[in-house]
Amino acid sequence: MNRKLLYVVGIGPGKPEGMTKEAKAALDDSELLVGYPLYLSLLGPEYDKKEKKSTGMTAEMERCRMALSEADSGRTVALICSGDPGIYGMAGPVLSLSGAYPEVKIRIIPGVTAATGGAALLGAPLMHDFAVISLSDRLTPWDKIEKRLRAAAEADLVIVLYNPESKGRSGYLKKACGILLDILPPERAAGTAERVGREGETCWTGTLAGLSERQADMFTTVYIGNSTTEIKEGRMITDRGYRPDEE
Amino acid sequence: MNRKLLYVVGIGPGKPEGMTKEAKAALDDSELLVGYPLYLSLLGPEYDKKEKKSTGMTAEMERCRMALSEADSGRTVALICSGDPGIYGMAGPVLSLSGAYPEVKIRIIPGVTAATGGAALLGAPLMHDFAVISLSDRLTPWDKIEKRLRAAAEADLVIVLYNPESKGRSGYLKKACGILLDILPPERAAGTAERVGREGETCWTGTLAGLSERQADMFTTVYIGNSTTEIKEGRMITDRGYRPDEE
Repeated sequence: MNRKLLYVVGIGPGKPEGMTKEAKAALDDSELLVGYPLYLSLLGPEYDKKEKKSTGMTAEMERCRMALSEADSGRTVALICSGDPGIYGMAGPVLSLSGAYPEVKIRIIPGVTAATGGAALLGAPLMHDFAVISLSDRLTPWDKIEKRLRAAAEADLVIVLYNPESKGRSGYLKKACGILLDILPPERAAGTAERVGREGETCWTGTLAGLSERQADMFTTVYIGNSTTEIKEGRMITDRGYRPDEE
Repeated sequence: MNRKLLYVVGIGPGKPEGMTKEAKAALDDSELLVGYPLYLSLLGPEYDKKEKKSTGMTAEMERCRMALSEADSGRTVALICSGDPGIYGMAGPVLSLSGAYPEVKIRIIPGVTAATGGAALLGAPLMHDFAVISLSDRLTPWDKIEKRLRAAAEADLVIVLYNPESKGRSGYLKKACGILLDILPPERAAGTAERVGREGETCWTGTLAGLSERQADMFTTVYIGNSTTEIKEGRMITDRGYRPDEE
């Protein structure tokens, strides 16, 4: 086999059953799997014998270049991402670097992103319009993030927060909740889902005021409801306010 | 087998390979599959022998009640949804009706939603914060939808539109683009993905001005970029502006 092919694969929340058949086919078709070590380890024993490369704690750009360069040498490579590769993932960096590897064919394989994986645990928080916002300010100025939080709250969108906290960014969830509490009532429904699809999977429901006191980390997805969202028997449910036009 | 179990299953964009292993396991485990006829037909020949029920052109509430009632009679049932069941899908209605069927155990199985399925075809439009908005005003007043469109554009969020048009709602995409053109430049990057994962799958990239002249239907997902989104060689790529905190 001498193809210059790079799959950018979303493996879903974590457990092997969360992967699509299409994602599995891409991994099976690949000679080399490239990814962050944690996500390579989540693939399960059936991939123990596949050649793997990772870049450890360094930026993803290096990992993308490695994957593109390996594919350019004539190999079929899968670059794996947690969740979906197009949501804060590798799809953008790969495509932006791909100009230097014009012979490499790139196929992006979607996966179940954290927002929907966590929502399935919590109940049905995303039943109406919603905004997805990352609290990571490493490349995005905080005032832009604040502007987006305010706009989403004022427009009565359900809000999903990715990357709420990390070791280098503690107190960010509390800060975001402080901004939202300017606009939303303290009893607004809120929830979190942690380690979805992995060991230690758990979820919590409560109020926005309660959320501002909680711990979070990089494996936590946070949900703040809209004005119709309720917590019933521990489930977070947003009103549909929508009926599809079945024709 | 005498379990009172209802799976609410996202089957992904359409093709069987777009389904997760977990979704397939839920369908295999079920004695009865309930769903809109089109989605039942997308499951593929391996489910030809399964008992199926649908409700045709009527509201999903009836379909949810049917599924819950069948499960309550002691059966294992799967209620299937296109994409993800928690995004404009059946998860909310099922949970809101579930109080009348307290013995039925409900498990929600996430799937690849149209936003990410379409994004994988288009390139990487969702690489930064985004809003998902439905243009269906059957239950949501248009002025609320307009408010959300304006807020998302002003906050420089990528915008994904679900249900852009239908037979009963023509001209809605043009109307939404008109609102966005109040705020965004006409050359703002835009794209559409149609019939993702199905026969006739196609995508288009261009500008917001061009988008306002295009046809759309219920199987079209629409993307309007943020201020960094570019179209390169027909691919829609939004700048990451984000780097995960690898620890």
